[in-house]
Amino acid sequence: MKFNNRNVFVDPSVKIGVNVKIGDNSIIYPNVFIGDNTIICNDCIIGEPPSVYYKDMDNYINPPTYISANSMIRSHCIIYAGSEFGEGLITGHRATIREKSKFGINCLISTLADVQGNCEVGDYSRLYSNVHVGEKTKIGKYVFVFPYTVFTNDPLPPSDVLLGATVGDYSIITIHCNILPGVHIGSNCLVGANSVVSRDIEDFSFAIGSPAKRKMDIREIPSKKDSYTNYYPWPNNFERGMPWEKIGFEEWTKLNTQS
Amino acid sequence: MKFNNRNVFVDPSVKIGVNVKIGDNSIIYPNVFIGDNTIICNDCIIGEPPSVYYKDMDNYINPPTYISANSMIRSHCIIYAGSEFGEGLITGHRATIREKSKFGINCLISTLADVQGNCEVGDYSRLYSNVHVGEKTKIGKYVFVFPYTVFTNDPLPPSDVLLGATVGDYSIITIHCNILPGVHIGSNCLVGANSVVSRDIEDFSFAIGSPAKRKMDIREIPSKKDSYTNYYPWPNNFERGMPWEKIGFEEWTKLNTQS
Amino acid sequence: MKFNNRNVFVDPSVKIGVNVKIGDNSIIYPNVFIGDNTIICNDCIIGEPPSVYYKDMDNYINPPTYISANSMIRSHCIIYAGSEFGEGLITGHRATIREKSKFGINCLISTLADVQGNCEVGDYSRLYSNVHVGEKTKIGKYVFVFPYTVFTNDPLPPSDVLLGATVGDYSIITIHCNILPGVHIGSNCLVGANSVVSRDIEDFSFAIGSPAKRKMDIREIPSKKDSYTNYYPWPNNFERGMPWEKIGFEEWTKLNTQS
Repeated sequence: MKFNNRNVFVDPSVKIGVNVKIGDNSIIYPNVFIGDNTIICNDCIIGEPPSVYYKDMDNYINPPTYISANSMIRSHCIIYAGSEFGEGLITGHRATIREKSKFGINCLISTLADVQGNCEVGDYSRLYSNVHVGEKTKIGKYVFVFPYTVFTNDPLPPSDVLLGATVGDYSIITIHCNILPGVHIGSNCLVGANSVVSRDIEDFSFAIGSPAKRKMDIREIPSKKDSYTNYYPWPNNFERGMPWEKIGFEEWTKLNTQS
Repeated sequence: MKFNNRNVFVDPSVKIGVNVKIGDNSIIYPNVFIGDNTIICNDCIIGEPPSVYYKDMDNYINPPTYISANSMIRSHCIIYAGSEFGEGLITGHRATIREKSKFGINCLISTLADVQGNCEVGDYSRLYSNVHVGEKTKIGKYVFVFPYTVFTNDPLPPSDVLLGATVGDYSIITIHCNILPGVHIGSNCLVGANSVVSRDIEDFSFAIGSPAKRKMDIREIPSKKDSYTNYYPWPNNFERGMPWEKIGFEEWTKLNTQS
Repeated sequence: MKFNNRNVFVDPSVKIGVNVKIGDNSIIYPNVFIGDNTIICNDCIIGEPPSVYYKDMDNYINPPTYISANSMIRSHCIIYAGSEFGEGLITGHRATIREKSKFGINCLISTLADVQGNCEVGDYSRLYSNVHVGEKTKIGKYVFVFPYTVFTNDPLPPSDVLLGATVGDYSIITIHCNILPGVHIGSNCLVGANSVVSRDIEDFSFAIGSPAKRKMDIREIPSKKDSYTNYYPWPNNFERGMPWEKIGFEEWTKLNTQS
């Protein structure tokens, strides 16, 4: 259905691993590396050149872009040159990821997500639909960012300062949050819907509101049903797609601490 | 302008009614049914296969997709296989609608709307720009959802629970609202801008805030101008595109109650 | 890379200036004017016909669309016929701009911005990612609207009234704001993140909240660092891309007042 080699253009400089599929109407620009078993669906642009290209096209050299093995890029994504993704990347449709972004392994970048470049996102982190990540944002590992949350970076708009926010490992940021420039959200935090995070949030906080304030320790969040008692920290109770799948977080942590 | 048969691919299994137009660069995958007088504009994907396709492409069979008569799908939409739309569907550009979604007749799905699948939306309901509908959401008839409102479904993120919200007939949800998992918004409600709906809202409520609280009965909303007195319930005062157009809601209700 | 004349269609009626580039898979519909030195990247639709086209395709005449000189339209944009843009327009990817929109010179319309038509935006104004501009909105000059802010226009939804908001020159509207129908935001205002602007805001206000209220005069905003003292009004401290670049706002104002 999707892989008929219709209107597909792959620059001769592109290095493609074994068992790779590229969908119809997709374009792979120069100096892209695509790892084994990766699927790039239809209508994608991989290795999109940044602004400097338009200033001197004749002498322009596209910086390298790394799409690693076992990845799945859904249709209509635009991935700029000069970005790097670990193995097992999954995207939704129409994600836009600008230059010099660095993602760890097994990340998710969902439909319409808009990553502005010069960002870092750690292993197993997930950006859901329409998440907007401003330049210089640094997101840790095992972080979930839910739809329509926006990371900003300009402390006095408009200015020339780029002050990215940072998020620690295992944190959950729910929908429609506003993460203001330079704030640090600790590890194992839960930020409630529609919050404006204007000050740092310490580890293990459940924070919500505008401005977002710590309401309690996440380990004290009351369960809605008996079965959910002590749901947070969530890695003890959720393992789908995580490296501790089938062995549990506690056992996995032990194994990783020993090594 | 739009219908030159350039780079159009329609699978031989597709059943197409009379007087149907399909725009340039559009792809119709297997087992799609398109009703009479329907227009599918350029750069659309209809019958997009869900994830299971990628696991075994050779043995994959695309589930049926029903686009009914008199519909108008604007450019760059992606509609997954296994969804079903009643007659008179209108979309904006770049809407994404995933599998097993079921829409009634005369619905609107506007530009950049993102419907995650396994949803139900009743007759004459309208999802405006950038509305995000999580899986398992159930929206009634004659419901208006305004831009950037998000329906969620995970009560303890991240978890494996999918608990969709429900919305009763004739309700209006304005912009940037956050509808939390499993809440029920009654019929004839009006939810104010930027609200976080975390608890059920009873019929005929005007609710707003974070968390959204009932402020008054919608029938008591003061009019801004004399001519708007008793504007709500809105069906008495708005009929464009509604089945009571030209006869009025009261008369239409009588006719429908009798039959 | 982008300009190989593959799958490009330009209607014979299109008037193209000197040194114009049009990217692969782009379509330019009838009666578009493209000024000198403009770049239209790949997969763009310029001169998209409004709804009336579908009612009588044989007799339809596309209204004129003006893309002026020195503009840069990134990939996957849809620009409707009947709109007009001053020189130096820059867009992101996948912006959608509907009919009868009028933009001044040197405007920015960023990725996924959704302009609903019948709007006016003044010189040097910038709409960032995913800004949604309802019909009849009027935005002044040197205005910055940050991501996910929504301008609405229906005072009693759903109704047939279109009451656009207005924004004065030099104002800054930050992320995720909700601008309600018919409100006037004065000049030199700063609206904080996630605000709901439901009443008029006077010139030089810093306003925030739901409903947004004036907190102080922008000239009294305390600086976070010594170097930022008296940052607002911002034109005294920011000049990148502005007409006062290199001469300063004060000097530029003198020159402009004299002439």
